[in-house]
Amino acid sequence: MKALVWHGRKDIRVEDVPEPPPPPPGQIQIEIAYCGLCGTDLHEYMGGPLYIPVGKPHPLTGAQAPVILGHELSGRVNAVGEGVKGFKVGDRIAACPIIGCLKCRWCKSGFMGQCDTVAFLGISWSGGGFAEKMNLNAYQAYHLPDTVSDEVGSLVEPFSATARMVAQGEVGPNDNVAVVGAGPIGLMALMAARIAGAKRVVSVEVAERRIQLAKHAGADAVINPKVEDPFQRAKELTGGEGFGVVLECVGQPQTGLLAGRLTRTRGRLMVMGVFEEPAPFDFTDLVYGEKTVKGSMGGYGMYNEAIAMMADPRFKGDALITGKIKLDDIIEKGFRPLLEEKDKHVKIVVSPK
Amino acid sequence: MKALVWHGRKDIRVEDVPEPPPPPPGQIQIEIAYCGLCGTDLHEYMGGPLYIPVGKPHPLTGAQAPVILGHELSGRVNAVGEGVKGFKVGDRIAACPIIGCLKCRWCKSGFMGQCDTVAFLGISWSGGGFAEKMNLNAYQAYHLPDTVSDEVGSLVEPFSATARMVAQGEVGPNDNVAVVGAGPIGLMALMAARIAGAKRVVSVEVAERRIQLAKHAGADAVINPKVEDPFQRAKELTGGEGFGVVLECVGQPQTGLLAGRLTRTRGRLMVMGVFEEPAPFDFTDLVYGEKTVKGSMGGYGMYNEAIAMMADPRFKGDALITGKIKLDDIIEKGFRPLLEEKDKHVKIVVSPK
Repeated sequence: MKALVWHGRKDIRVEDVPEPPPPPPGQIQIEIAYCGLCGTDLHEYMGGPLYIPVGKPHPLTGAQAPVILGHELSGRVNAVGEGVKGFKVGDRIAACPIIGCLKCRWCKSGFMGQCDTVAFLGISWSGGGFAEKMNLNAYQAYHLPDTVSDEVGSLVEPFSATARMVAQGEVGPNDNVAVVGAGPIGLMALMAARIAGAKRVVSVEVAERRIQLAKHAGADAVINPKVEDPFQRAKELTGGEGFGVVLECVGQPQTGLLAGRLTRTRGRLMVMGVFEEPAPFDFTDLVYGEKTVKGSMGGYGMYNEAIAMMADPRFKGDALITGKIKLDDIIEKGFRPLLEEKDKHVKIVVSPK
Repeated sequence: MKALVWHGRKDIRVEDVPEPPPPPPGQIQIEIAYCGLCGTDLHEYMGGPLYIPVGKPHPLTGAQAPVILGHELSGRVNAVGEGVKGFKVGDRIAACPIIGCLKCRWCKSGFMGQCDTVAFLGISWSGGGFAEKMNLNAYQAYHLPDTVSDEVGSLVEPFSATARMVAQGEVGPNDNVAVVGAGPIGLMALMAARIAGAKRVVSVEVAERRIQLAKHAGADAVINPKVEDPFQRAKELTGGEGFGVVLECVGQPQTGLLAGRLTRTRGRLMVMGVFEEPAPFDFTDLVYGEKTVKGSMGGYGMYNEAIAMMADPRFKGDALITGKIKLDDIIEKGFRPLLEEKDKHVKIVVSPK
């Protein structure tokens, strides 16, 4: 079958690979419908290996490079391994890429994303979403209702992650929420905060195209720190209350500092942006304002809730998917435009056929 | 009466000032027994004004420089203003320096330290603890039991602040706790964590004299990052569990970074150190470990609990008070040694007579 294989930094190839074997006990096999291109894929391509095991097998899964990329996927069940309950051939599913040991304290307390030996589909597993078929653990699959199309189903993974960030930030009806960044994650976080019932949701963004996307995605207003004082504007937009919750979805050298300072006294800053290196933070402001900062990683535990939220009209899947391409074209029409003109695109989703 | 008055940066003077008037309604007057010298006093002296209002009156209290310094104090009630209940002449008390408007959302929700117009005894008030007498709001006074001496009573303010940090960090019997820094606040935080029932309390310190103090104060072990790998040692000391709670009590350029990384997956980093400027922080580590960071400022709300904790034998007031001096000597025997040989001292407490 056809698949996108990561061989090394700046060496990815669409090539023929063997089909997966019949699913072993506890696993299912799926025919992939769509898989979204994610920042992690770009990082592994340009600067990897980051999480791909090279030269020695992953301690939990045994996987190592070359690996098939892709971890934001929807598909149809094609075969069911021994002992699997709750899935049958033909079921439409979205997959959670997180694979845990099921034994450590994190797996046993509902935090599989923090598993001591965590692995991921499309990174440290035998298969990935940029292919025709793959096997995965049955516990990684979530049924898709008719309200969620195959294309939108490939957004379940990143949207669950933002929904979990919003849940961990305890966003509620008294909260003015600021979302720093209006890339794919920022836009989904904005929708998740909106659906979670936030009082106001304000985007913080500097790129003109993304400012428009944020408005379309449901932002009450957009603060552009390049052209206005963000703190003064925050006061005006919130009637002096400030932002009770700020969601950092960028990971650039100065966005952590800005996001912290935009958080009001005793407010919560949730961080999902991945920073290349330590970045400045205003600890004194944290102390005097008794603020809270939390990191949030992955959507494990929020998949069913997120799928239900996607039926809400405020979830605008079509505003997120700016490109649908074929696997054969993934390098030219997927990786290249996302690397070269990233402000023009949100999500590009890939079908194998 | 005699008092230490702040006139400007590097200009503090012990001088004669008028006695406070009889306490107005809602206030009490106290004869000061002891007042501790605090890092804030040193900062106002060397680099101030930081919080002292200069040139315009404080919006809540009307105070402005010159002001009497001192905010960690114990004393005896000397006079009681109209309408005050619960205090009589002769009562021994410790004072909380925090003055709130009693109207804003923070005052009304138990967080007077975050009041929109917060003021402090000895900084932005008519009186301070480095004097013979002062008036204060009755709500700022807390009765001292016989178990707490006048000298130790002057430690109630900083100890309440560390006890509150420990409470906000939800330190419990399953927590390995690391305390970064063994200055006065670090040592008190160590005792507070110990009394709160932490499983293990480990100090992180580089100065030899302070390493000894940390051991004397009850640390199970001390990690010295200058001579050993702190992460490797943390693993060894906690049987691989890591530190569920880390208390940052320093505020130097690299201590925020270290404290964050020493916090285990899904652990809590509490920050009380005051940093002179933004400092590096590892946001990516925060995200992948889903860690929580909280700032904690002041002891408001924890005074009675802290006073009760001070009766525990694991609270070692004598290990904290390394000098008792007279107000006349405060510059030569108080400010000077704390500025010039700070590792030799913990708390220096000052009596007016």
